[in-house]
Amino acid sequence: MGAGYIGLEMTEALHARGLRVTVVERLPQVLPTVDPELGALVSDELRAHNVDVRTDTTVQRITKSGDGLLVTGSRGLDLRTDVVLVVVGARPDTALAETAGVVLGVRGAIAVDRHMRTSVANVYAAGDCVHPYHRVLGTDTYLPLGTTAHKQGRIAGENALGGDREFTGSLGTQVLKVFDLVIARTGLREHEADGFTPATVATVADDHKRYYPGAHSIHIRVTGDTDTGRFLGAQLVGHLASAAHKRVDTFATALHHGMTVADLEDLDLSYTPPLGSPFDAVQMATQAWAREHGWFRSHRVDAGIPPQAALSQ
Amino acid sequence: MGAGYIGLEMTEALHARGLRVTVVERLPQVLPTVDPELGALVSDELRAHNVDVRTDTTVQRITKSGDGLLVTGSRGLDLRTDVVLVVVGARPDTALAETAGVVLGVRGAIAVDRHMRTSVANVYAAGDCVHPYHRVLGTDTYLPLGTTAHKQGRIAGENALGGDREFTGSLGTQVLKVFDLVIARTGLREHEADGFTPATVATVADDHKRYYPGAHSIHIRVTGDTDTGRFLGAQLVGHLASAAHKRVDTFATALHHGMTVADLEDLDLSYTPPLGSPFDAVQMATQAWAREHGWFRSHRVDAGIPPQAALSQ
Repeated sequence: MGAGYIGLEMTEALHARGLRVTVVERLPQVLPTVDPELGALVSDELRAHNVDVRTDTTVQRITKSGDGLLVTGSRGLDLRTDVVLVVVGARPDTALAETAGVVLGVRGAIAVDRHMRTSVANVYAAGDCVHPYHRVLGTDTYLPLGTTAHKQGRIAGENALGGDREFTGSLGTQVLKVFDLVIARTGLREHEADGFTPATVATVADDHKRYYPGAHSIHIRVTGDTDTGRFLGAQLVGHLASAAHKRVDTFATALHHGMTVADLEDLDLSYTPPLGSPFDAVQMATQAWAREHGWFRSHRVDAGIPPQAALSQ
Repeated sequence: MGAGYIGLEMTEALHARGLRVTVVERLPQVLPTVDPELGALVSDELRAHNVDVRTDTTVQRITKSGDGLLVTGSRGLDLRTDVVLVVVGARPDTALAETAGVVLGVRGAIAVDRHMRTSVANVYAAGDCVHPYHRVLGTDTYLPLGTTAHKQGRIAGENALGGDREFTGSLGTQVLKVFDLVIARTGLREHEADGFTPATVATVADDHKRYYPGAHSIHIRVTGDTDTGRFLGAQLVGHLASAAHKRVDTFATALHHGMTVADLEDLDLSYTPPLGSPFDAVQMATQAWAREHGWFRSHRVDAGIPPQAALSQ
């Protein structure tokens, strides 16, 4: 139960071992780290593989029942099963740091600066136990990710040896494989975009030219700041073969550099009909956002004038 | 004959139609747009599909012979065949422009500025007939690519209607599928890096964690400027499933922003064991370059001191 990253990876692993799996999620959708429209695609993929998905359902009791277990809860949940996997998220383990007098920060994680220094001299910390700096928000957040841990570990190690290196910040880039589906995101979703005026536009774009066999659709949701046109984040869901997991890296690299949504159109991305389009799926998604919000490259088109008309002024 | 993009795509297409294909290439390698080490991988892929590859071989004569054709040339070339496909590269078609008095530029292509203006007032040009601005070289080049044509077409159209939009430049990003292989590149190779002191480092990195089944190696060659540490270009060859074609886009986006090779390590790219590594293959390749050339992020390590030792100074 619990349908985040670990819960869904274990679902697939247990399914691969021949077990019948029921996913019980307290929230209204599986994978609450992406927008509900994309979470629904993940539910579809799970059900297509005969996984029983129960959202909006809270487990209230697990009792022994003969050789197995009885799981009951809201919405009439009443399952007999051999194994229960409880997946309840990650929490920083700070016991050692606290005994050393280290100050804690966001969500109880160890407070570190961008040099990975804790509040105690000569004590550095890195990884899931600290609150990383978020490059788009410009503040510390709690985002435990292996990629961030690897970067921070190098920085902490180097600085502990007398170096002077700064963590350039997390974008929260992450990806998950669920059966034949890839779910990836980078940056902010609307409700996370504190200090911005965010809007999100959804696009479905082909991973390559449809006239060449084997094209897959990628669902892309682009979030940008309507005040400045700045790119804030993207979420992608596509087939394993759609390279959605590396297309998110193009978004992430653009985000690292603070590009506007519209300026992504300028990127010189690769194209050949079996593998892409002259404007990549990434760019079709940003073009859709720019059109809808009247942003045309770095310049905003005057309110009330559709972008097409403004061009001829 | 001719083993560039079109020649190799046609080879695969004809092979798919059941024809036995011989590729005859005047140069010492197929796909001379990438380094010879990578061209060799393409030859291997062709031969694995029973394509007869003849490099360093010049066709001297094609004569009718009964129902077919006889193709003879250097190195004892003597082939009887039904069809000959002559692939000899692209040349800008400028006849119309010349009659209008338009000035030609690099390689006889139409000279345009970054607004896609020709030398004749109110005449704009875009696509394979013009010489595009190269963002890394800072000069005009001849690089006929569909992606560039699409971008330039929009810019020319917008400016012809009174807009004021500038082409931000080509990186020469390109990709080719040859059977199960993807060959991609962006930016400059050493011999193209005029004005720089380029060096190239080769890496072989897994597309995802090897403990998860189905990992493929990606051959990556990173070129950087040893004077400034600036990233200049990358070439990748990998299996279709390795997402090499979209990993090149990460390189291209970094290149668009003028990053140093070492700074690519800071990018927050996606990771999950079935689809990547905590430092992506892209970053393993740039880390290898940075180590070998003593560049550590934006700072160069003193000559003669290995990077590891320098850290503890």
